[in-house]
Amino acid sequence: MAERISQIGEFGLIRRLKDLLLKEGVAGRGVVLGIGDDTASFIPRSGQEVLVTCDSMVEGRHYLPECISPHDLGRRAMISNISDIGAMGGAPLYALVSLGLRPKTADADVEEMYRGFLFEPNPFHASIIGGNITSVGDSPFIDITLLGEVPEGRSLRRSTARPGDSILVTGFPGRSGAGLRLLLEKKGTEQVEDHPLVRKYLVPGHRAFAGRAIALSGLATAMIDTSDGFLGDLGHICEESGAGADLEQNKLPLKQDLIDAARAFGEDPYELMLGNSDDYELIVTCPPENVTGVITALSEAGVESISEVGKITPFAQQIRLIGGDGSERRIEPKGWDHFG
Amino acid sequence: MAERISQIGEFGLIRRLKDLLLKEGVAGRGVVLGIGDDTASFIPRSGQEVLVTCDSMVEGRHYLPECISPHDLGRRAMISNISDIGAMGGAPLYALVSLGLRPKTADADVEEMYRGFLFEPNPFHASIIGGNITSVGDSPFIDITLLGEVPEGRSLRRSTARPGDSILVTGFPGRSGAGLRLLLEKKGTEQVEDHPLVRKYLVPGHRAFAGRAIALSGLATAMIDTSDGFLGDLGHICEESGAGADLEQNKLPLKQDLIDAARAFGEDPYELMLGNSDDYELIVTCPPENVTGVITALSEAGVESISEVGKITPFAQQIRLIGGDGSERRIEPKGWDHFG
Repeated sequence: MAERISQIGEFGLIRRLKDLLLKEGVAGRGVVLGIGDDTASFIPRSGQEVLVTCDSMVEGRHYLPECISPHDLGRRAMISNISDIGAMGGAPLYALVSLGLRPKTADADVEEMYRGFLFEPNPFHASIIGGNITSVGDSPFIDITLLGEVPEGRSLRRSTARPGDSILVTGFPGRSGAGLRLLLEKKGTEQVEDHPLVRKYLVPGHRAFAGRAIALSGLATAMIDTSDGFLGDLGHICEESGAGADLEQNKLPLKQDLIDAARAFGEDPYELMLGNSDDYELIVTCPPENVTGVITALSEAGVESISEVGKITPFAQQIRLIGGDGSERRIEPKGWDHFG
Repeated sequence: MAERISQIGEFGLIRRLKDLLLKEGVAGRGVVLGIGDDTASFIPRSGQEVLVTCDSMVEGRHYLPECISPHDLGRRAMISNISDIGAMGGAPLYALVSLGLRPKTADADVEEMYRGFLFEPNPFHASIIGGNITSVGDSPFIDITLLGEVPEGRSLRRSTARPGDSILVTGFPGRSGAGLRLLLEKKGTEQVEDHPLVRKYLVPGHRAFAGRAIALSGLATAMIDTSDGFLGDLGHICEESGAGADLEQNKLPLKQDLIDAARAFGEDPYELMLGNSDDYELIVTCPPENVTGVITALSEAGVESISEVGKITPFAQQIRLIGGDGSERRIEPKGWDHFG
């Protein structure tokens, strides 16, 4: 019989998680105090800017427990934060994990989720140094704060793209969103958890090693990760940079599985590629003469697919899609509005 | 007609909150990037340890919206984090605020809550530099991560109390817990929101300025804030320090309003003083010869009531209550178990 949190209690659970972190986590560099006091603490390295971000996932909104294992859920929650640190060019260092859990949750599931939390930061030698656990009624949540570092002056923002810059994107945005749709449509009728698009949704991966390489290369002008969809995040770059963008439709990266899914949905695959989807790919802008260098840096960091898809323009917040026939169509970045 | 989040949308709300922070917040020292990019960032001061803590509040578990104004709720959520930074001897610097909100929540209420978030950090010149907003169904939550700093080597832990140390406590623990009980018992029948005990529960205050003064004085051996009740937190000190404690019952601080409430509840006031209550007072241990110095430092930091209540003993995790007649009684620290 699985033990539930209500049986071992908050402090019992915390003791088990501390043991798990000691055994399966890494010792974070510069950590003075980890879990167990009023705060954690660390000594930052000189010459480094400290990055900090937080992101939360709520059951029923960001994930369906019947569709994702606790381990994958833990990975996914950490990936979205690692991706944010990576999109600034940083390396993750320390995480704080705040959980809202049902009392009837099995202790073993929380431990598996913690193994998922460790899976992605461990290769960076990043560690979990703090957190909070509380009980909730109907809406369990995971809220992770991740700290990282980037050499002073090297971080890559979304506000610094310049007209004339080339726009590059890694991988194949849109696949995660298509995977979510597939999961929701087939749920209960068909086993789709192993479909490549669904896997991309459940455990999207991140580009933090590549993002760091780009920042350190000094070749790019702006960078962002795609968590609000390709168009939503390109829209963030345009809005913050006071610029626009022209996208060449036939250069937009489409993978066969997305084309197949679009056909099954009766949709235009380009709509799926551009629309809401959290793929955690990178959008990078750079002067045209740096494109080769950026592609080389991304390739050396292990990115297999890189597409140059268009140019930043001076037309504030106007994003246009240029067809193969030279036609121009204005498209609206929507982004993922949780309250929309 | 009040505007709801679902009407202005996630990004509309974020824009309003950014405006509010610009107008009513302070510019945090060393901040490179505030709200609006993939991460926030700052340049830490050399010679300082960075402290980081997080604490969450869930509607229905940690607060009842019908009993607390959005402004007080914001203050209270920030206080519990500031108290943790202060209990290490640190000064708060930067906050990240992660909210789970119902779509039907009024925008004006979120703005009022944000004014509450700013109320406590502003005097420290600490700023809100990031966060996250998501929609939830039935369990709105507030999860705050707070960063602070303390000069290297000066932080005061819970694990470093030594046998023979005197135990001091600020203020009158137990009043917040009694206020909560009063609120729950009288809710719907009597207006008790202005009762001093209820106010202490709703907006408990913090001792962060005093905590910092104690840490910088170098006179204390250990420190903790009382968020799990006096006995719960003294228990944390004893557990982490591998020590015990003898408390002199007639030195325990009792305020008349707690005595009156205990009588009305038909309870022993000492039980209320020792039990579950989040008052955010400080428990400080120090060698007996430093007691006068600690009291002076606390007084100079504005603490009006300080009590020396007992001694740390070598008997691991045994906390004893010594009666006026010399009788000894072992008491168990329970702490506030959210899953108990």
